[in-house]
Amino acid sequence: MPPERLGGRGAGLTGLLLSILCADLAWAGKLLVIPADGSHWTGMKMMVEELGKRGNEVVLVMPEVSRSIGPAEHTTTLTYPVPYTKSQLQAIQMRNLDTLVAQDSSNLLKKIYSSYMTLQVMRNYTIVACESMLFNKEVMKILREYDFDAILTDPFEPLGVIVAEYLDLPSIYISGGLPCSVESVSSQCPYPPSYVPRRFTRFTDHMTLWQRIVNFLWTAIEPVACRWRYASIEELASRLLQRKTSMTEMMSHASLWFMRFDFTFEFPRPLMPNTVMIGGLNCEGSKPLPLELETFVNKSGDHGFVVFTLGSMVSQIPEEKAQLFLEAFRQIPQRVLWRYTGPTPANLPQNVKLMKWLPQNDLLGHPKARAFMTHGGTHGLYEGICNGVPMVMMPLFGDQGDNVQRMVTRGVGEVLNIHYTTSEEVVWALNKVINDTSYKEKIQKLSAIHKDRPIEPLDLAVHWTEFVMRHKGAEHLRPAAHNLNWFQYHSLDVIGLLLSVVAIVIAATVKSCTFCFRKCCRRKTQKKKKE
Amino acid sequence: MPPERLGGRGAGLTGLLLSILCADLAWAGKLLVIPADGSHWTGMKMMVEELGKRGNEVVLVMPEVSRSIGPAEHTTTLTYPVPYTKSQLQAIQMRNLDTLVAQDSSNLLKKIYSSYMTLQVMRNYTIVACESMLFNKEVMKILREYDFDAILTDPFEPLGVIVAEYLDLPSIYISGGLPCSVESVSSQCPYPPSYVPRRFTRFTDHMTLWQRIVNFLWTAIEPVACRWRYASIEELASRLLQRKTSMTEMMSHASLWFMRFDFTFEFPRPLMPNTVMIGGLNCEGSKPLPLELETFVNKSGDHGFVVFTLGSMVSQIPEEKAQLFLEAFRQIPQRVLWRYTGPTPANLPQNVKLMKWLPQNDLLGHPKARAFMTHGGTHGLYEGICNGVPMVMMPLFGDQGDNVQRMVTRGVGEVLNIHYTTSEEVVWALNKVINDTSYKEKIQKLSAIHKDRPIEPLDLAVHWTEFVMRHKGAEHLRPAAHNLNWFQYHSLDVIGLLLSVVAIVIAATVKSCTFCFRKCCRRKTQKKKKE
Repeated sequence: MPPERLGGRGAGLTGLLLSILCADLAWAGKLLVIPADGSHWTGMKMMVEELGKRGNEVVLVMPEVSRSIGPAEHTTTLTYPVPYTKSQLQAIQMRNLDTLVAQDSSNLLKKIYSSYMTLQVMRNYTIVACESMLFNKEVMKILREYDFDAILTDPFEPLGVIVAEYLDLPSIYISGGLPCSVESVSSQCPYPPSYVPRRFTRFTDHMTLWQRIVNFLWTAIEPVACRWRYASIEELASRLLQRKTSMTEMMSHASLWFMRFDFTFEFPRPLMPNTVMIGGLNCEGSKPLPLELETFVNKSGDHGFVVFTLGSMVSQIPEEKAQLFLEAFRQIPQRVLWRYTGPTPANLPQNVKLMKWLPQNDLLGHPKARAFMTHGGTHGLYEGICNGVPMVMMPLFGDQGDNVQRMVTRGVGEVLNIHYTTSEEVVWALNKVINDTSYKEKIQKLSAIHKDRPIEPLDLAVHWTEFVMRHKGAEHLRPAAHNLNWFQYHSLDVIGLLLSVVAIVIAATVKSCTFCFRKCCRRKTQKKKKE
Repeated sequence: MPPERLGGRGAGLTGLLLSILCADLAWAGKLLVIPADGSHWTGMKMMVEELGKRGNEVVLVMPEVSRSIGPAEHTTTLTYPVPYTKSQLQAIQMRNLDTLVAQDSSNLLKKIYSSYMTLQVMRNYTIVACESMLFNKEVMKILREYDFDAILTDPFEPLGVIVAEYLDLPSIYISGGLPCSVESVSSQCPYPPSYVPRRFTRFTDHMTLWQRIVNFLWTAIEPVACRWRYASIEELASRLLQRKTSMTEMMSHASLWFMRFDFTFEFPRPLMPNTVMIGGLNCEGSKPLPLELETFVNKSGDHGFVVFTLGSMVSQIPEEKAQLFLEAFRQIPQRVLWRYTGPTPANLPQNVKLMKWLPQNDLLGHPKARAFMTHGGTHGLYEGICNGVPMVMMPLFGDQGDNVQRMVTRGVGEVLNIHYTTSEEVVWALNKVINDTSYKEKIQKLSAIHKDRPIEPLDLAVHWTEFVMRHKGAEHLRPAAHNLNWFQYHSLDVIGLLLSVVAIVIAATVKSCTFCFRKCCRRKTQKKKKE
């Protein structure tokens, strides 16, 4: 269905007509979908399409301009205007690319400043997009008229969270974890700093004393970092809802959290009842390759081939960096398939094939796939796990550093620093994961565990989304902890009270004893004096 | 298959022969099953039979004398001798009955003493049964020769826990929760006393300050209570394993915990990754009633009928108590089906039918079922939930008081105190749950939520048991918290260290300032003196 522009003439009417049409059909849930941009949408699209396919009325709302969000099958797409253009968005993406890959190793300050500025600019775009929709009265009116049963959103971009509050809809979040552990705070999930490593620390669940100290201090600092990240958006939400609110408060109303992991990836830790793990949702069974690709990879003989991508954010890299990788690939017997959209570099080795787009999961599922070079996004890593292919990982930003650490802990890959790596290092890493059989054995074992599940993550996701629609939420999964403040939650009032009682009893006892003792002494003294 | 006696001639040979036979077949897991007696076995039997039916080699080990454990289909049953008789066990059961139902309300001390003594005697029987098996060398040799893939056991009776340690088998526990929250302690699951009510308190998850104080103190006292409960068995285990051990330590090695609840019953609280909820496993779709029963209940007309049982421990009650219930039933228009094995009381009202055994789930699934009078065992309550029948509950012992509290909180039933209740009260409670439509509406809503699940609990149980067998455990679900002591787990060492650093810095600063200040003062004084 072609996207429909909201906020223009006739949009409200169309919404109403759709509602009336649906009322005549057999009951089906009405779901509002507000995704986050970039790879976040990639992981959500399959689920949204499946929900539509199973008969639900799924309405996807997106800005007119976005990096990756696009219409999905079996859904109605509605767009709303935003005050920026595609080329402006692309410019920021390119700038991001410069920051990520081509960082000048000689200037640390410049690097930090550049990263901060990129984050700041991206945050501003998110806020502008939010404002464009939330304060567009016509858009909000149309959405209200739909009378949705629930909203499915990615809280990485807070728009959907605020819309859920405004429209008073049961909300379902899909997330891989949020900065400052907001998902744990909001869902009242315990996450002890002694063995649950914080984001961006790259620690494992087995920490040294020093790491536990850093992890503990990180936990203490997180709320401050969050305040910076969410300040403008909270002001915006408070203005719309006409009450003081915060992201944590709004997110605490979530009916359900879909988490994009399972414990073949994440370190084991407590979960709340309204958390459903759907890690590996994106890796279906791999399909046969197109003839051209099949021919290319088959010519690799017993050596097999390597798949190389750096994710949806980075499709081309600076010439100098590209040459470094080509130099490495020249030295290995494997063939290489590289997702690369820039101009073809000079002296392209014969064993390397550059492609604008790769059927990544199908390639990894090919029996000749020997290694996967990836930036460490969760989607890619799960495709590696699903297909049992050892990995060479080069994290770029965000959670990728933590993600790859999880894979290294399980002995299924090696990590390189993309900013400082050399051809020799790339060759070493590829040879290691390909020729040292332990990597293959461990990833195959991990793959077997990951796939040995009683129900497929897609079915799980669809079931629980429909559950929330059917029952208008999941109130029975909401812990009473939400009704306590942190002082009560940690029983600090109880401890204080008990200590006070003990103190009073001790004081009273001491006082009484002293009093009795003095009385006795005085009597004795008086007796002696009399004597 | 008829039970085979272990520890006699030929038992080892049979075990070996079975092993050899199975090795020739297609791979199937070999599962050792050691259940707990009483209603615990009832809830486990269906799962064990299903595992056998799906091709696994399931070996059920039980004492020659037990209250309820009996051979199951598709399993091999092996028995071991114990130094007590069935009649001795029955005598203790009868004594238990006296304690539970016929308590003399006028003598509280006698009641407490009697309860304590019953518990003590039952505990002694458990220890004797454990000792009979664990130190029977022939039995243990045969079990070792089986080379099992895993053990499935109910840790309520600790025999299976110790056997798992001794045979070094991946262990799967099935439990509804244990005294002293041992299941939470062992699995490193957080259970904050601020909103997770402790056993036997009968509190809900929304506690007053006073209740939170009691719950907190209860948490502090629990380890002492546990020490009493497990002392002898820990001594026995340490003797067998030839190392000092505790129940918590042994249970911390569990690969998987099946919990006999879901959140339509239990209050929402954190769960660990190796916890799988299988509440409601025992209530399949109800079958049609035998003709005689169908005729009886159909004659009840629009008024419908009441189902009355007090569980597997209590099938007959003192005459005087029975008369009280009959007096009540005489006053209601419903028919009553009562599981009752004693002599038929005089003046049995026409609307009451006494039966030695009731097809409880089938009766509750009948459209004319109006109310369920139950002692509040989890099996019964889940049958009530499944079939959406409001309940009148009379808890007798153990977790039943807590169980019924959960149902009352959800507004699906009323509680009576079986020791002090009157006919009038019984009539009042039955009329209330039958005629006040809110009970029916709420239990039907609860039933709908309970049954709206992506996979049936039986399939879930079978899958995860086979998972543990296939992968020789579930190591990827084991939290790193197991490697920390409680001091580290709560980051107390980190906090101590940080506080020390802060103290040292403050002390050093104060010292330096004082030193500088003194130096300055001295110079000024000397200057003044010179002047």
